[in-house]
Amino acid sequence: MYRAPVEEIAFTLNYVAGLARALEDNRLGDLSSDLVDAILEEAGRFAGNEMAPLGEVGDKQGARLTDGEVKTPDGWPELYRHWREGGWNGLTAPEEFGGQNLPHMLNVAALEMWNSASMAFALAPTLTMGAIEALVAHGSDSLKATYLEKMVSGEWTGTMNLTEPHAGSDLGVLKARAERAGEGTYRIFGQKIYITWGEHDAADNIIHLVLARLPDAPAGTRGISLFLVPKFLVNDDGSLGARNDVFCHSIEHKLGIHGSPTCTMIYGDGKFGNDKGAIGWLIGEENKGLACMFTMMNNARLAVGMQGVAIAEAATQKAVSFARERTQGKAPGWNAVDGQAMSPIIEHPDIARTLITMKALTQGSRAICYACAHAIDMSHHTQGDEARHWTERAALLTPIAKSFATDAGVDVASLGIQVHGGMGFIEETGAARYLRDARIAPIYEGTNGIQAIDLVLRKLPLSSGAQVQGFMAELKIIAGDVAASNKPAFGETAERLGRAITDLEDATRWLLEAQASGRTAEALAGATPYQRLFGLVLTGAYLAKGALADTGDGHADRRVSLCRFAAENMLAETAALKDRVICGAASLEAARAVLG
Amino acid sequence: MYRAPVEEIAFTLNYVAGLARALEDNRLGDLSSDLVDAILEEAGRFAGNEMAPLGEVGDKQGARLTDGEVKTPDGWPELYRHWREGGWNGLTAPEEFGGQNLPHMLNVAALEMWNSASMAFALAPTLTMGAIEALVAHGSDSLKATYLEKMVSGEWTGTMNLTEPHAGSDLGVLKARAERAGEGTYRIFGQKIYITWGEHDAADNIIHLVLARLPDAPAGTRGISLFLVPKFLVNDDGSLGARNDVFCHSIEHKLGIHGSPTCTMIYGDGKFGNDKGAIGWLIGEENKGLACMFTMMNNARLAVGMQGVAIAEAATQKAVSFARERTQGKAPGWNAVDGQAMSPIIEHPDIARTLITMKALTQGSRAICYACAHAIDMSHHTQGDEARHWTERAALLTPIAKSFATDAGVDVASLGIQVHGGMGFIEETGAARYLRDARIAPIYEGTNGIQAIDLVLRKLPLSSGAQVQGFMAELKIIAGDVAASNKPAFGETAERLGRAITDLEDATRWLLEAQASGRTAEALAGATPYQRLFGLVLTGAYLAKGALADTGDGHADRRVSLCRFAAENMLAETAALKDRVICGAASLEAARAVLG
Repeated sequence: MYRAPVEEIAFTLNYVAGLARALEDNRLGDLSSDLVDAILEEAGRFAGNEMAPLGEVGDKQGARLTDGEVKTPDGWPELYRHWREGGWNGLTAPEEFGGQNLPHMLNVAALEMWNSASMAFALAPTLTMGAIEALVAHGSDSLKATYLEKMVSGEWTGTMNLTEPHAGSDLGVLKARAERAGEGTYRIFGQKIYITWGEHDAADNIIHLVLARLPDAPAGTRGISLFLVPKFLVNDDGSLGARNDVFCHSIEHKLGIHGSPTCTMIYGDGKFGNDKGAIGWLIGEENKGLACMFTMMNNARLAVGMQGVAIAEAATQKAVSFARERTQGKAPGWNAVDGQAMSPIIEHPDIARTLITMKALTQGSRAICYACAHAIDMSHHTQGDEARHWTERAALLTPIAKSFATDAGVDVASLGIQVHGGMGFIEETGAARYLRDARIAPIYEGTNGIQAIDLVLRKLPLSSGAQVQGFMAELKIIAGDVAASNKPAFGETAERLGRAITDLEDATRWLLEAQASGRTAEALAGATPYQRLFGLVLTGAYLAKGALADTGDGHADRRVSLCRFAAENMLAETAALKDRVICGAASLEAARAVLG
Repeated sequence: MYRAPVEEIAFTLNYVAGLARALEDNRLGDLSSDLVDAILEEAGRFAGNEMAPLGEVGDKQGARLTDGEVKTPDGWPELYRHWREGGWNGLTAPEEFGGQNLPHMLNVAALEMWNSASMAFALAPTLTMGAIEALVAHGSDSLKATYLEKMVSGEWTGTMNLTEPHAGSDLGVLKARAERAGEGTYRIFGQKIYITWGEHDAADNIIHLVLARLPDAPAGTRGISLFLVPKFLVNDDGSLGARNDVFCHSIEHKLGIHGSPTCTMIYGDGKFGNDKGAIGWLIGEENKGLACMFTMMNNARLAVGMQGVAIAEAATQKAVSFARERTQGKAPGWNAVDGQAMSPIIEHPDIARTLITMKALTQGSRAICYACAHAIDMSHHTQGDEARHWTERAALLTPIAKSFATDAGVDVASLGIQVHGGMGFIEETGAARYLRDARIAPIYEGTNGIQAIDLVLRKLPLSSGAQVQGFMAELKIIAGDVAASNKPAFGETAERLGRAITDLEDATRWLLEAQASGRTAEALAGATPYQRLFGLVLTGAYLAKGALADTGDGHADRRVSLCRFAAENMLAETAALKDRVICGAASLEAARAVLG
């Protein structure tokens, strides 16, 4: 069973991502390190003891739809109530609406734990938090007053309604329509698919944020508006009124996250006998809906990255624990212990390599995601050039955090199955569930391929390339610090990390030049390998940063050895990735013929 | 829906794996190239038209157990009957028992098609073929006379009973026991798990081959005997007699291959009221059971490798077809066709890269597996040194074929889901099933980690290293032929392939030296990266071999471009793998501390 790695999480927040320094410098208001520890401790307890057992139930039972009503797995409505009563839903929300206004770093760390315990469950608050954010940033005072308090408390949940059958990655072609209906209201019509927690039995009301098109809207992405459409209309006194004209038509039968209802939502079908058209309110300005969505995109993508970290952590824990218990064969040098002829499989070099690789990918992904959260926090607590710097840093890190961590989630979960041998393929073991759940994360909230396009076309050119160049200069300082430490236990870390950073610099320069000279297709051909290259380099650099921070907690030697393993076993891949970025495009273009 | 790539399969058999040359040289009896084509054509038709539709049904419905009886999915018993009536079960079996005595290459090619259509279904004959092989090689004349004809025709199926809960990879500790019961019979007692098609409704009788231990057997692997235990005893006239004391206690709830019943079998429980103890007959000699199993291990491992090839092929077909139809966004340089503003996603460079990578992995895996089958065939049709050469070649190729192809199956299936975007995660789409099915193949029939141990410890030292060195010399000739061809379309193929082969040579030399000097743990630490390195080099070399063979079929340019893509985009990884083999062990050993 999952146990939250609270100590590792706190260490990574503090000494890798930068929380300790920010607290020292009083950059995050009156937050104290004691409060941070207390929050992490309690989140870990809740995730491990209360959420994780119901995560297994949820996978087995799944969400079920009967007559438009969705029943979540047994125990989930109560679990959700306990969870929101703990105040977890409003960790980062504004105090005026009942939130705690804490840094995103803490919420991201908590999200990791919720997702390790049950990714399907954690999706409900993840979506609600996104909806709150959009509403805080773009909602009218009246909408805020009516909805935010209940959403921040978690009494009402939120959803995001973007996708339609023909409009997924490309939202410009969506067809849902909105008509002006007077008194500031609109009527919404259309079908939306893949709506996470679109209907369920764990909250009194569900607040849908829906992208739709007004009759006189321009074509494409500039003609999309964002509307708030509650499941139940809200009376002036805050009580719930009539059912709105929106319902769940069906739920998907998915590979994983079975407990999370993935709904097809129908707007404006007149199902409940009222006038046709779901009643909605505009968020932000007409035709500016996509911009409203984008303000919350960074946080949402980071939240999905956390799913990758979370699954990697849980899958690694499970595999390590199995490999310690399971005995099979004799590892080289194994001396029978207590008459036990077979060795625990963790003693076999190949299993050890697999498990340590899983650890390194997990810890690297965690560090990248937390560093991204730190950048978001700093951007909110700084001004002027400094704020711009941190905003850019968050923007640069977001696609890497989302893609590298979610790829790691899939890879680590798959390795976890492998460590379990035949048992890994049996559902009751629980290892397979991690792979099934993890597999959606590289897809939704912008596929990892789209993250790579975003990274190359929009993030590298930030400040004319100065942001990424400055970041790489910081990474080189870390490599230099490793060299200066003169610790033999680092092995070849300094040289190998240095070489990997040089590969990243070369690839970055090439991509910036390719774009500057209009060779967009060539740049895009190398976008995915580049994104992975960046993630690997950050893994090496952040593991080194952690290994250099000897906090006297007794784990410094372990951190150094994990860092060295990553440097000497994983970073050599950067040369191949750089090569693919710089030399791959021509052969890719030539090979299109094989696709017929 | 899957369509068998008959042309590609025939080309690979003939011009990459060596069938055309062997036929020319009359090395395979009176087999004609026309017969080969006819067999492949008909297998392709059956797999695509009759088997594939029922593969989907099987995944959805799964095998079901009621009161010890297993019901396979709707339509499967009829499908199985049609299939065996086509003569497919006895393709390679001896003619004296009704088989067709055809080369393994043909059976392996057919297995690819059955597995692409339904891996769960194809497991039934795969296990039967293994049992036939063990019986042919080691069974007494009496056992052969009683069982082989019905098994070759497929009227009766076969199983392999090896695993017990505590004895998986390490069979030395198995506990099932056998007692001598007079008249050459034995009584078998014990529990076996993960028995593929251990019980089902598609055949009249099921012939279990069971590993068990005699009372006076030595401990460990030298005290294991192999027994034949039929579900129904067979009367002297060949009719079925009493039910034997063996039954299916439960079937597993698995990640994939749902249509294949994975059974826990109980022997000797007295369930059917007869004297306790399942009646069995010895195969081979007492205490030599493991050796009997090993004679069929090469073929069984290759058959699992074919599952990887098969899933990779089917997943690639599905993804390519989806990517041609699905429109989303505008690829760089896309000009609207017929007013269609969005481009098919296949036009996006990242999707094209993904699909071409899938193609290269599929084709590389196919070539490796077919080359392995060719070596097996040649070993049967040659004598003396030549036979030894081909036996060693088959032995060397087997772990690479099994591991590289099954890893490719998982990777390609996962990429296939990614290409489908959100739809990939929905079970009805069918892309997720490929990943679920594929995930067992790197595990069973010896995990890929165990294949790597086998490759490094037992296969590299064959003929004191001369076998592997000779093989690498052959690969260098291919690289030289590419250079000599002077075709600009090959791009940098010759240099890059040459460099990859050098990496393989370096890693091989290092591993042979490490073993020679007793540094087994160090050698094993690099076994898995080495195995992948070998597979990648073979992928590059075999794609080049195919690209050099211009047969006038109009596809030579495509083959050259796929080869170049693999060389320029995938082979750069070999440097990192070599590095991991040679430099990885020390940091691995140091990092064991992180596993606690």
